[in-house]
Amino acid sequence: MIRKYTYGNPVETGAVIQKLPDETQPFSLMQLDETQDGIRLFLRMAREDAVYGLGEQVRGINKRGFTYISDALDDPQHTEGRHNLYGGHNFLILDRKKEPSFGIFVDDPSRTVFDIGETKLDELCIQAGPDCVIYTVEGESLKDIAKQFRELIGRSYIAPKWAFGYQQSRWGYACAADVREAVVGHHSRQIPLDAVYMDIDYMERYKDFTVDGEKFPDFAEFVSEMKAQGIHLVPIIDAGVKMEEGYPVYEEGMREHYFCTDADGKEFVAAVWPGKSLFPDVLNSKAREWFGGQYRFLMEQGIDGFWNDMNEPAVFYSERNLKKVMKELRSIEDDNLDLYAFWHLKGLVNGLENNPEDYRQFYHNMDGVKIRHDKVHNLYGYYMTKAAADAFEHIAPGKRTLLFSRSSYIGMHRYGGIWTGDNASWWSHLLLSIQQMPSLNLCGILYTGSDIGGFGCDTTQDLLMRWLEFGIFTPLMRNHSALGTREQEVYQFENTGDFRNIIRIRYGLLPYIYSEYMKAALDNEMYFRPLAFDYPQDAHAAQVEDQLMTGSSIMIAPVYRQNATGRYVYLPEPMMMVRMKSLEEKTCTVLEPGHHYVDIALEETVFFVKKNRMLPMAVLDEDVRNISGVDMERLEWIGFTDTEASYVLYDDDGISKQYAPKENWKKIVRTKEALDVTA
Amino acid sequence: MIRKYTYGNPVETGAVIQKLPDETQPFSLMQLDETQDGIRLFLRMAREDAVYGLGEQVRGINKRGFTYISDALDDPQHTEGRHNLYGGHNFLILDRKKEPSFGIFVDDPSRTVFDIGETKLDELCIQAGPDCVIYTVEGESLKDIAKQFRELIGRSYIAPKWAFGYQQSRWGYACAADVREAVVGHHSRQIPLDAVYMDIDYMERYKDFTVDGEKFPDFAEFVSEMKAQGIHLVPIIDAGVKMEEGYPVYEEGMREHYFCTDADGKEFVAAVWPGKSLFPDVLNSKAREWFGGQYRFLMEQGIDGFWNDMNEPAVFYSERNLKKVMKELRSIEDDNLDLYAFWHLKGLVNGLENNPEDYRQFYHNMDGVKIRHDKVHNLYGYYMTKAAADAFEHIAPGKRTLLFSRSSYIGMHRYGGIWTGDNASWWSHLLLSIQQMPSLNLCGILYTGSDIGGFGCDTTQDLLMRWLEFGIFTPLMRNHSALGTREQEVYQFENTGDFRNIIRIRYGLLPYIYSEYMKAALDNEMYFRPLAFDYPQDAHAAQVEDQLMTGSSIMIAPVYRQNATGRYVYLPEPMMMVRMKSLEEKTCTVLEPGHHYVDIALEETVFFVKKNRMLPMAVLDEDVRNISGVDMERLEWIGFTDTEASYVLYDDDGISKQYAPKENWKKIVRTKEALDVTA
Repeated sequence: MIRKYTYGNPVETGAVIQKLPDETQPFSLMQLDETQDGIRLFLRMAREDAVYGLGEQVRGINKRGFTYISDALDDPQHTEGRHNLYGGHNFLILDRKKEPSFGIFVDDPSRTVFDIGETKLDELCIQAGPDCVIYTVEGESLKDIAKQFRELIGRSYIAPKWAFGYQQSRWGYACAADVREAVVGHHSRQIPLDAVYMDIDYMERYKDFTVDGEKFPDFAEFVSEMKAQGIHLVPIIDAGVKMEEGYPVYEEGMREHYFCTDADGKEFVAAVWPGKSLFPDVLNSKAREWFGGQYRFLMEQGIDGFWNDMNEPAVFYSERNLKKVMKELRSIEDDNLDLYAFWHLKGLVNGLENNPEDYRQFYHNMDGVKIRHDKVHNLYGYYMTKAAADAFEHIAPGKRTLLFSRSSYIGMHRYGGIWTGDNASWWSHLLLSIQQMPSLNLCGILYTGSDIGGFGCDTTQDLLMRWLEFGIFTPLMRNHSALGTREQEVYQFENTGDFRNIIRIRYGLLPYIYSEYMKAALDNEMYFRPLAFDYPQDAHAAQVEDQLMTGSSIMIAPVYRQNATGRYVYLPEPMMMVRMKSLEEKTCTVLEPGHHYVDIALEETVFFVKKNRMLPMAVLDEDVRNISGVDMERLEWIGFTDTEASYVLYDDDGISKQYAPKENWKKIVRTKEALDVTA
Repeated sequence: MIRKYTYGNPVETGAVIQKLPDETQPFSLMQLDETQDGIRLFLRMAREDAVYGLGEQVRGINKRGFTYISDALDDPQHTEGRHNLYGGHNFLILDRKKEPSFGIFVDDPSRTVFDIGETKLDELCIQAGPDCVIYTVEGESLKDIAKQFRELIGRSYIAPKWAFGYQQSRWGYACAADVREAVVGHHSRQIPLDAVYMDIDYMERYKDFTVDGEKFPDFAEFVSEMKAQGIHLVPIIDAGVKMEEGYPVYEEGMREHYFCTDADGKEFVAAVWPGKSLFPDVLNSKAREWFGGQYRFLMEQGIDGFWNDMNEPAVFYSERNLKKVMKELRSIEDDNLDLYAFWHLKGLVNGLENNPEDYRQFYHNMDGVKIRHDKVHNLYGYYMTKAAADAFEHIAPGKRTLLFSRSSYIGMHRYGGIWTGDNASWWSHLLLSIQQMPSLNLCGILYTGSDIGGFGCDTTQDLLMRWLEFGIFTPLMRNHSALGTREQEVYQFENTGDFRNIIRIRYGLLPYIYSEYMKAALDNEMYFRPLAFDYPQDAHAAQVEDQLMTGSSIMIAPVYRQNATGRYVYLPEPMMMVRMKSLEEKTCTVLEPGHHYVDIALEETVFFVKKNRMLPMAVLDEDVRNISGVDMERLEWIGFTDTEASYVLYDDDGISKQYAPKENWKKIVRTKEALDVTA
């Protein structure tokens, strides 16, 4: 049961796809105060209630105990004290033990605040509006509420099958030779690899939709050279368009007034990677169509995947603000160089980046309606991504193109995935990425994953290995790292064979991962779920913050602590533990419900099969290099049953948008004896 | 067995108290390379070996997997990526399973690097020197190695007994009324409290050894008003002395040449809290004596405790560097305002604070020897603290004075404790503080604790409560928070009674905590120990990163995860769990060895008694306000035995330096039946 409540005059965000009538009865699930500043919602929580959702945020699966803010921000310090990350995912579910649970979605693209027991331990307070739409979702279970919400917001983006392979990225691959080296580094060691990413350096002076001809002399030729090896190149596209005379994207955008402007209608200038840049007004349908059309330049050269970046939009500084700051700096006399001058100086300089005041200085033309950016701030990444996705319908009709974004808002999940931004090579960020997955799935974002090994800071061999052992279960499985950090391609470390074993397990699991992903997307289900969603009657399940139900058949419990050679695992029901040293070396053990300490050596991957469930595992040749080498007909069945286990297998061509209709999903049943791998 | 190796011409750091002859045989426990840059030590570690020590650093108890640097730094970002904190604690123990374990102490007061398996998973690499002394410690067990090392470095500082009470601090208590409010806030709710801290605001314009007469009209009178309520006031002392004509400390120091100078002999000017300041040359014995003598000003007004801060020494900026930067900023023309100019600007401004180049710009006069600061950087906090401690011998002879410091070096542990600096209100920092304790104890630092509730960021009721449940076991138990953060005195929250219960448990435990502290100090033992120290034969013990052996009778296992209502606990042997809702409500349960999941509600404190051990618990009146209200004769005995348990009780007057000799330590034996509290 979904109810809709409208306050003020909200803009159409495109978050939901169902047109619902407004409720006529007043809002009653929470106390609602309407002031001229906006809406405030209050609810007293019972101590045992849990809160799920909010997508990309820090802290645990149960979001209680902190204030989360939706206010898209490019800040790599994803510490426990960070209130906002890159997106706005304003949906949460209150899991209440003594009263009905419900979900609430605050469709508000400006700054929205969720104080979930920070100020008062047992009080939820949401601040939004004044212009917003609130949807409440009541249902019979957490899963039901989640599914109703997902139906409200529409089907999640589906990536091409190759994008479920292992992918390698680094900010620092500057030319064709660097990319070739990465490919050879993997393939020469028989480590499968499906994609290499091109970070900002491939462009001419960071100009979107250009390729530096010195670094990539014949780009189309290079793209096909890579394709011949089964490698997809995935270039980055930044939000800001460089101001440069003679650069067609800039000139055309200026001529047609496609960029965001200040209050006086003059283009708003912000510095990002290319230096002085303009932001395409992606909230304007014509500008959006125009910007999306630019992707054609790369697609015509064979590119079939993109990542959209810097689209919070990030601002290193605005022209107006830098001038102001410089003027002030110059006015500080030597005589006045005291502590206060120093702090003032520091504040000025560090306040230049992503300055909230800048977001109040520029405007969108939403098809005739002029709207100040901060009112719709969280939509920018969404509409930049929609620009691309809409264009792909024309440029590559009927075909899936890989697309994901850094900034996002609910609704964007229909057009692309996200990665979880600039994390660090910290063990706590491996745990964070585990915890973010179900929260993102709840908000519709299924194609997602974190930068494996960590983006910032120097990774270590053990961290990368443990992160991969989790990463083999995330739809987006990409190793990515920042310029200046330690090189973290798996072949940079000792014991490369151990890394190869883990990555090959991903390819072995591909039939399962792809099948589960597709079923979740087509059926509006969650691929990753907190344990409480599958075991609502289990009082301990809601306490488990480091295990995930993953697809229909398994539970994962990754190791995320340095120097740990095992971990505690909670089983809500009997499960079969599958321990893998490699795709070929598996042992299975049945474990009783309850608490277990499980040894998991650094090189081992472990997962848990639910009772009477099974999963397919592809048998791979030694020299499998890409997803295309995974034979969906050559499957082993791993299952746990005393009688028989069943599985619904999904497959398709992996590239067209002709998804298999439900009647073609293959239900397979095996008796215990007919299983290939069991305890 | 301790061996000493000298390289180059090291300064005398005062870290050790035993005069040992140099070894004549070459160093053999590790591969040692001597280059002109310094010493490099290498060792291949077996995968199962663990590394303990290094005192105040981030990450786990087992230090493997990261590079730690001793290079005292004032930086509040204690994330997993932080290589150096406030101190230099260059002692570690290699716990080797197949070869003899050993300890190594690198007595080098300049930057020292410990790469413990970061670059290569199984390789330890230490970089020190060229001028340093290396001590190796071989022994029959981890405990034996630890004890030998502690004997080498001398007996740890002993605080007065009142400093084992609960203490309240906040950067922001600006006047007598603020302090009174904090005292009344606790005592009116019958929450015991023994001390209130005075952060930088009590001084006149941040001048050391002054008290602002407007904020504290009659300070001596105020000190005794507080004492009458059993409250000790503990003022902060900063390293930097304000440059101000007419300020006697400045003028006298200038006249006598007691401040650090630049290469030309001119006083080195750095800005810290008072603005332009000079650093007393605490490495010079005359200057040290002079600086220590200044504490008399406060002691004569009744003060009997101090915390020394900013003594890395922290530098907001140096005069020479700020001028250089401002000149450069002014030269940036508007035409050149590009991205590179912006980054350059940002780098310049953010590079002002604690700039390594500044540490190469000033000098000490070590009793006739001129030495550049960076060569002895890690000694500054040590010798500032020694200055105070030496002076106390004259000002308050025979009496204990509370003294602890932010920066430290091994050797300083004889003169004072430390607190673990500017942490944050993060759950991960509660865990970090648990993990730092045994590492600090290993390096001799016994009187220590973290800022309970977290210094930076806003705390929450549950975080503060869980932190207190751990904090009741740390010798220094202080709630401290930063200006601008949420007020975090326990009475600022709902359910104040729950906080009162926890703090009263501390006072009930006082006979145990004080007894264990004193025995550890007088016997060169560790108060907090990793499980592997007590259970070397237990293969799992070394895996346990979140439980601590605490004193001789108990093990603690604090809850450090948000929303957790329990946790896993590993018992290497049978233990008795004591669950306390308050001092008066205890239940005891015997648990078998192995893994357990234990429910621990937010308001509950739990600890585990070892077999055949017992501990005293004071019976308190409802209105106990201070340590003085704890009656050491009114004890309950909590014990776990089938036959009889024993305990060695230490007590003394708590204030004089006449510690009880070992023959006066009272061994008490109780049969199971004679115990007051048991399972």
